Amino acid sequence: MRQYEMYEIVLKGSAPEGSEASVDVSAVISHNGQKKQVRGFYAGNGVYKIRFLPEESGLYSWKVTGRLSAEGSAEAEPAAEGEHGIVRASGEHYAYEDGTWFYPFGTTVYALAHQTDELMDQTIDTIAHSPFNKVRMCVFPKHYNYNHNEPAYYAFRSEKPEEEESAGEAAKKYGVWNPDHPDFRFWDAFEDKIFRLGRLGVQVDLILFHPYDRWGFASMSMEKNLTYLDYLLRRFAAIPNLWWSMSNEYDLTPAKSLDDWHTLEEYVAANDPYRHLISSHNCFHFYDASRPAITHDSLQVKVVNMVASERARLHKPVMIDECCYEGNLAEYWGSISGKEMTSRFWQAVTTGGYCTHGETFLDKDADEDSAIVWWAKGGRLTGESPKRIAWLRRLVESFKAPIDPVVSKWDVLKAAPAEKLQTLAAQMPESTAIMLRAMSCMTEAEKVLMNAGEFGYEGHVDDRIFLWYLNRQTFGRFQIELPEDGRYKVEVLDTWNMTRETVAEDVSGNYKVTLPGREYMAILATRMDHLTSTR
Amino acid sequence: MRQYEMYEIVLKGSAPEGSEASVDVSAVISHNGQKKQVRGFYAGNGVYKIRFLPEESGLYSWKVTGRLSAEGSAEAEPAAEGEHGIVRASGEHYAYEDGTWFYPFGTTVYALAHQTDELMDQTIDTIAHSPFNKVRMCVFPKHYNYNHNEPAYYAFRSEKPEEEESAGEAAKKYGVWNPDHPDFRFWDAFEDKIFRLGRLGVQVDLILFHPYDRWGFASMSMEKNLTYLDYLLRRFAAIPNLWWSMSNEYDLTPAKSLDDWHTLEEYVAANDPYRHLISSHNCFHFYDASRPAITHDSLQVKVVNMVASERARLHKPVMIDECCYEGNLAEYWGSISGKEMTSRFWQAVTTGGYCTHGETFLDKDADEDSAIVWWAKGGRLTGESPKRIAWLRRLVESFKAPIDPVVSKWDVLKAAPAEKLQTLAAQMPESTAIMLRAMSCMTEAEKVLMNAGEFGYEGHVDDRIFLWYLNRQTFGRFQIELPEDGRYKVEVLDTWNMTRETVAEDVSGNYKVTLPGREYMAILATRMDHLTSTR
Repeated sequence: MRQYEMYEIVLKGSAPEGSEASVDVSAVISHNGQKKQVRGFYAGNGVYKIRFLPEESGLYSWKVTGRLSAEGSAEAEPAAEGEHGIVRASGEHYAYEDGTWFYPFGTTVYALAHQTDELMDQTIDTIAHSPFNKVRMCVFPKHYNYNHNEPAYYAFRSEKPEEEESAGEAAKKYGVWNPDHPDFRFWDAFEDKIFRLGRLGVQVDLILFHPYDRWGFASMSMEKNLTYLDYLLRRFAAIPNLWWSMSNEYDLTPAKSLDDWHTLEEYVAANDPYRHLISSHNCFHFYDASRPAITHDSLQVKVVNMVASERARLHKPVMIDECCYEGNLAEYWGSISGKEMTSRFWQAVTTGGYCTHGETFLDKDADEDSAIVWWAKGGRLTGESPKRIAWLRRLVESFKAPIDPVVSKWDVLKAAPAEKLQTLAAQMPESTAIMLRAMSCMTEAEKVLMNAGEFGYEGHVDDRIFLWYLNRQTFGRFQIELPEDGRYKVEVLDTWNMTRETVAEDVSGNYKVTLPGREYMAILATRMDHLTSTR
Repeated sequence: MRQYEMYEIVLKGSAPEGSEASVDVSAVISHNGQKKQVRGFYAGNGVYKIRFLPEESGLYSWKVTGRLSAEGSAEAEPAAEGEHGIVRASGEHYAYEDGTWFYPFGTTVYALAHQTDELMDQTIDTIAHSPFNKVRMCVFPKHYNYNHNEPAYYAFRSEKPEEEESAGEAAKKYGVWNPDHPDFRFWDAFEDKIFRLGRLGVQVDLILFHPYDRWGFASMSMEKNLTYLDYLLRRFAAIPNLWWSMSNEYDLTPAKSLDDWHTLEEYVAANDPYRHLISSHNCFHFYDASRPAITHDSLQVKVVNMVASERARLHKPVMIDECCYEGNLAEYWGSISGKEMTSRFWQAVTTGGYCTHGETFLDKDADEDSAIVWWAKGGRLTGESPKRIAWLRRLVESFKAPIDPVVSKWDVLKAAPAEKLQTLAAQMPESTAIMLRAMSCMTEAEKVLMNAGEFGYEGHVDDRIFLWYLNRQTFGRFQIELPEDGRYKVEVLDTWNMTRETVAEDVSGNYKVTLPGREYMAILATRMDHLTSTR
């Protein structure tokens, strides 16, 4: 047993008579005078497992009750190097259980775990050699363009046992899955992918429901949904590298009202003894991330300029989990350039948020159904953005602490309501007042449009680091403002060509940076007299 | 005298005793049994002029009354080749008086007429060799970044005659211009630029007021504003190549309420016998272009996706008169790339609108005040967009009729109010209904954001031409829909590299176009069996 690594108590017993999901087996785990109750699950073949996560080192003891009884204890060794525990929200950022900052740079392979073994091996190998330390993937198989294959196994058996040999056909025919009878082959194979990704240090943002479905998983009854979640939480909650994404595109998922989503989200929060991160991802209308059980914002959005305002509103991390995909598909969402993907990462990261990658290339003559498109099935990455995202990740990690946005006076004014602007105008000299009064006449739509067309991306790490991302502006010069009491080195970064050049040293206060007039530049100012501090 | 060319009746008389602007001289111009009253103006030195524009060929006679009397007549020859008369709105497009379509491709040189003769000559020469057939320029001098020089002359004399030798100094000191006493040197020099541009076929979008001012022209009393407009209209209204732009950034102009703007706009409409185009240009909040005197929308906006909806709302032409400037200034508005400028033209033009260029390059070591930045002072163009805009202009002109937008079902849905979407959802199969219900939950801000991040630009010329501008999407393929009853040639256009390649012929109905996966591509489908028609 080791701190931050899942521990498993394995017991033998007779198969459950009724539900194989909601079995009457649980354990009280004692450590340092504290007790935690965790439920066990049936793993098939007369095997029951109770999983728990030692969050500290030292002696853990357990007492199993219910249809099985057992007791035991073991010493949890201190965490192995590189193991830091579950990732949690820490203010507007993410940190592991041990306080080490975690900077998510995610990718998306929705149906990662529903492919051939060979392809899944290749996908995991690709991730291992990529900049990505988080992957969004679904529990249920996915039915959508470029992704119509049958998985090897389904999560549950059908209610028609005579059809067991072909559960997929049965469900298509009868639309009746039975979550009380998990297909253990599915769960064994599925968690193997989570474990393998965990060993690579990759967080799995596990999508619990999604709309793209021909089998009926998206439209089960709420009773069945809760039985499914019960089994999933018993089985997975002690795995450290997991986040719960309640849904992909919650607002397109059939058979669930907003009340249903709240019920599901609260159920997960209440039945996860380890309080993994919980979010819900939208298509058209943002999910209400201010809800108490939601730990962070998980947005699908194509204009990445709301990170600072969302952070300020929610006091939670803001993750752009879908900003379109680098690729060449015929769909708008699947055909942004590598430049644009890289840019969206920079936009989010510079303003104190996080972004998620995906790739959707299809060979010219490929058959759409059998093609292997990364965002659906995995395989190999061929896009231009991953190596630039890797470069950004190295830069961010070199800062040793997360970036917060610099909210300019101008940003504050743009967000202010009309009455506030009128009041301010009355206190200002006429030249400023004119501008404020003009701004007070803007409609909300005009404000959103203005921000969408022109936005200043600026971030800082306390007074050590200041970062400006200039996106597609071709500035030949740019005015920066640094603290008067520090001395800074100023570098010009080409985020596309991945170069950095020192253009000034010993700078403080206002400084005009000379730039080459190219797109995708950034400016980095690093305090020269700072003491290296690491959290 | 010739059709479509300004004709001038020149009379001698004693200098006016009171106002030199609002003089009591007018003429009734008779032609073909129709009479038109036009007012004359005092040109200084005992010279009065009455200008009128023969809009048809044939005999014109006139009778001058007021402080001077005269009669006369002359035969207007038919229009010279290339002369088409005043440009007017024609539905959502522009056409000359004779019905010839006019496709504006404008540029911006705000203080064109307030520079040295040498520089003005250079600017006009540059325009002559550019793709631009319209220029936005101000009557009054401009005081703004990169543009602080004194003009040679001012439009009026100061109210303090003892300061006459240095009117600019006087006005700065006293802030009192006297529009009843025009400085004729100014008006002679100014109209020379309009005439010269007219001979090049260039429309002057004349900005009558603007906020960037240190002399007091922007904050004259309304009485003085009207006297100024009176003189300007008497003098300029018969010049065919003029449009009236009531203001640049009306909402930032001091000393004018919205009521004042309405008064000024209505005054111009009522006192211009030739009904030139009238617009007003915004900074933050769009001017209400639905007002009867406003002939077209003149927008400042940085995201160019509202052309089709504005056209549908207004039934007037929509012109993006400021979409930022290609350049390298330190300001956001002055540092978009040549690619972005070209793209904004394509976005506007493909969806049935028009766009205006501007350029703001500053040499690395240039002095900001003495530098010659095109958008302010003119000079030479050095950007990458003009030759691409020229390529676009040639393409558009080859269509022989203007482009109207194709509004997709999807665009209609995005614009629909929530109740409409809910009603539609109730009539649709569940898979579609889910999407409509989700869209009905979007806030206005979410809708604007969605359109800003992803927009389909599609236009057509009746059933002869279909055009898709794919902007920065890197499609490897794209589905187009053509009429079933036509046979089309399909070309792939690279709008940046200015190449076109025929990829299919004899196509009708749905067709999947193969694309190279690069940014800035377009698709052009031309009906192969059409008869060439020219309006």
